[in-house]
Amino acid sequence: MAGQHFTVTRLEGVSREQFMQHLYPQRKPLVLEGIDLGPCTSKWTVDYLSQVGGKKEVKIHVAAVAQMDFISKNFVYRTLPFDQLVQRAAEEKHKEFFVSEDEKYYLRSLGEDPRKVMDNLLIQVTGKKRVVLFSPRDAQYLYLKGTKSEVLNIDNPDLAKYPLFSKARRYECSLEAGDVLFIPALWFHNVISEEFGVGVNIFWKHLPSECYDKTDTYGNKDPTAASRAAQILDKALKTLAELPEEYRDFYARRMVLHIQDKAYSKNSE
Amino acid sequence: MAGQHFTVTRLEGVSREQFMQHLYPQRKPLVLEGIDLGPCTSKWTVDYLSQVGGKKEVKIHVAAVAQMDFISKNFVYRTLPFDQLVQRAAEEKHKEFFVSEDEKYYLRSLGEDPRKVMDNLLIQVTGKKRVVLFSPRDAQYLYLKGTKSEVLNIDNPDLAKYPLFSKARRYECSLEAGDVLFIPALWFHNVISEEFGVGVNIFWKHLPSECYDKTDTYGNKDPTAASRAAQILDKALKTLAELPEEYRDFYARRMVLHIQDKAYSKNSE
Repeated sequence: MAGQHFTVTRLEGVSREQFMQHLYPQRKPLVLEGIDLGPCTSKWTVDYLSQVGGKKEVKIHVAAVAQMDFISKNFVYRTLPFDQLVQRAAEEKHKEFFVSEDEKYYLRSLGEDPRKVMDNLLIQVTGKKRVVLFSPRDAQYLYLKGTKSEVLNIDNPDLAKYPLFSKARRYECSLEAGDVLFIPALWFHNVISEEFGVGVNIFWKHLPSECYDKTDTYGNKDPTAASRAAQILDKALKTLAELPEEYRDFYARRMVLHIQDKAYSKNSE
Repeated sequence: MAGQHFTVTRLEGVSREQFMQHLYPQRKPLVLEGIDLGPCTSKWTVDYLSQVGGKKEVKIHVAAVAQMDFISKNFVYRTLPFDQLVQRAAEEKHKEFFVSEDEKYYLRSLGEDPRKVMDNLLIQVTGKKRVVLFSPRDAQYLYLKGTKSEVLNIDNPDLAKYPLFSKARRYECSLEAGDVLFIPALWFHNVISEEFGVGVNIFWKHLPSECYDKTDTYGNKDPTAASRAAQILDKALKTLAELPEEYRDFYARRMVLHIQDKAYSKNSE
């Protein structure tokens, strides 16, 4: 069974008020077109970036393929002067390289993990990206390891290994320079850069700030209520582990039915 | 998709030692044939039962159909002298009746609930029964309300209402006078009497007695570790309820994945 595919809605000329009042509360991904991003979309060329960034050394991800795998880590960390990075990243084949002449580079300006718990605007300043998103409602089909999906090759997934993945609903969009993608907190996203470009991510807290862990600088951690619930659940499982396997299995299934009944949203969208 | 059907294994001439050492530990339903039940299988006729039971009044279930529904309670409670009950139960059409001339009777000699947590030998002394069993592993397909399935008409289920029921693996057997059915604790069973008869159930505790609730006279209650785990889970859900719906839904799904990973048996049999 092939999964359902959706195209992320694109809207042009949305005002701040329209977004905040009508679109933001829907908690769905959305591409905003024609937002005034200032001169960056034309100004941030390879030459300009090389010039203003200069020779400051930066740590980058280098991989043989475009799709970096943050579970198995199919990339290496290397260091380059910023201007050299920009020039290499913009060229098709590399004369100088770390891994292969087709290697890909990725510079992340902040922490390591995708920010799952905060809302995000991904501003595509230059270049092109393809972004595929999956709803948090489909978490059970994504073979999560922590907060990341084990299914890396989403275009040709190994369905013998990941049979449920075909049930995940796929939301796709192509971002071009000037596009702004709203990624609601908790949505999974898989990004491929189709050409050299610069993206700027703006994260902000969706929930009241007391919901978040105060030691969580990057906004990666689960809300404190979710962490506490997970800890309490571990106590329940420890208690259940006193029973022999067949009873443990049965009462675990009852617990799952109870959670589905009490805590799942009734609409499946 | 039609669910898988299995016939319950029948074995003749099994000794007590064979049962205890090799069969009982497998925790699967099993029909034992040719067990020496003494003279009851021929002696307990309608006349004999009427005579020895006499006119002592008994409280019975009376329903218009053979399949009694212990969720919606499609039966009424009535009182009859024991000998009259036996005679009515044995006749095809009733001249005297409470509900209809085809009404069915059921006399349960002890408590109300099926004993889910204890092992059970159902001894078919006289008459015929058809028994359908479902594994506790398939609990999620049975639309449980408490410990009972909402799916009453298991031969022609309403799959629009109960779509998952088709995934439940069905284990079926026909019991004739002299047959003994082993029903392991936690297995769901659906019984239809195909003719008048007497069944004797023997229940015994499978787990060490300290695993059970001491106030549980009839052995219906969950093992104490399972009850405690359920109480702890409710605390976790209360904590999760502090979050808005989309977060609660997402972290509830994460909890389910965690339970499945930690507490479900790895084999699905």
